[in-house]
Amino acid sequence: MAAASPLPTPAPEPAITLPGKTPLGHPIFTRIRLATPSDVPHLHKLIHQMAVFGNLTHQLSATESSLSSTLFPSTKLQPFHSFTIFILDVSLTLFTDTPYHTNPFYNPTEEVVNLDLAIEDPERETFRVGKSDVFAAGFVLFFPNYPSFLAKPGFYVEDLFVRECYRKKGFGKKLFSAVAMQAVKMGYGRVECGVLDWNANAINFFEGMSAKKLQELRICRLTGEALQAYGGTDSE
Amino acid sequence: MAAASPLPTPAPEPAITLPGKTPLGHPIFTRIRLATPSDVPHLHKLIHQMAVFGNLTHQLSATESSLSSTLFPSTKLQPFHSFTIFILDVSLTLFTDTPYHTNPFYNPTEEVVNLDLAIEDPERETFRVGKSDVFAAGFVLFFPNYPSFLAKPGFYVEDLFVRECYRKKGFGKKLFSAVAMQAVKMGYGRVECGVLDWNANAINFFEGMSAKKLQELRICRLTGEALQAYGGTDSE
Repeated sequence: MAAASPLPTPAPEPAITLPGKTPLGHPIFTRIRLATPSDVPHLHKLIHQMAVFGNLTHQLSATESSLSSTLFPSTKLQPFHSFTIFILDVSLTLFTDTPYHTNPFYNPTEEVVNLDLAIEDPERETFRVGKSDVFAAGFVLFFPNYPSFLAKPGFYVEDLFVRECYRKKGFGKKLFSAVAMQAVKMGYGRVECGVLDWNANAINFFEGMSAKKLQELRICRLTGEALQAYGGTDSE
Repeated sequence: MAAASPLPTPAPEPAITLPGKTPLGHPIFTRIRLATPSDVPHLHKLIHQMAVFGNLTHQLSATESSLSSTLFPSTKLQPFHSFTIFILDVSLTLFTDTPYHTNPFYNPTEEVVNLDLAIEDPERETFRVGKSDVFAAGFVLFFPNYPSFLAKPGFYVEDLFVRECYRKKGFGKKLFSAVAMQAVKMGYGRVECGVLDWNANAINFFEGMSAKKLQELRICRLTGEALQAYGGTDSE
């Protein structure tokens, strides 16, 4: 923040321009809302991009169909009590379709952000939301966990992803903050997330959000054929 | 399994004894069943013992009341779709109260184990289940998680605990196996659990159950006042 200078007769504020440049400030409207089944094609593409980013496409077996049936089963539990997704939408104009995205469990949060440079989104058409001028820019997938020492639930953030052209603008912070705010609202005791130890960017991000990396905790995973072996009646 | 020996005239099997010793084999009946609200006092004590075991009593704020309201809320979700607890019961005689513990979501699994030495349980009265001769010996607390790359849920095992006098008898394996079997039954893709990196016993246990320790994954945790700071409307 600039220090105030004691000018006795302040001149009227001019429009902010720099010589030879367009006026400063490119507003972009952002919205965080609960995902719906119609977001599945976008989610599938976003998860694929996430796998490419992490060099993990060999681990990816999700399809639109499997995402749809597991994230939005016919006996869908209330959001926040099971697997939950916030979508980050962006638009160059005010959102006019928000009422459609409002539901009893979560009112979309909107915010306008002034950027120095306009964003060129090469994947606009791929990520257009319905027929509007709204585009899916990222998502966060989370669900409750239960730290028994606290005897109250928390949230575990499984994925947090922002498309490349929208990075470094604080949008990931918005998504994570939305989860943390929801946790506080519900009286939950924790928000946790997994990071790869070599991913300094991710660790810096979460530490910047006041999360602490647990030095000693490791995860053991049983999966694939080793898990299937438990399926027989004589597996023990 | 012993190889069959082609004895033409097998003698009647004698009682198994060793010279100067009591007869071999102390049968103990074990049962794994879903916890009910009436288990909360036992669960609270088990969680306390677990905190003592891990030198973590300073992190323990769970009370019977808070466990009860969070694990068994009035709008309780179906077991396995939310926080779920299996109790390990033991008895010196056949279970006669099993029908009471059967429910539409899980049939208790019973098994008899022959021990070389009888177990002296110094906390029998504390952990007596109802008025029966059944005693709570341990528990496992788990809930669904969602690996989006697989696009199908898994289970996360938050706690796995067996009381001291019942350890080293394969009871922890039974509890973990029950979770893994349930995961397979539901078509889930993973079972995961957290261990502290210095806890070689725990790591050996899970590796013995075919789980693999993930070398690179770390958990970041936002909790306490740092989490509460997200509660204000200006927190972002």
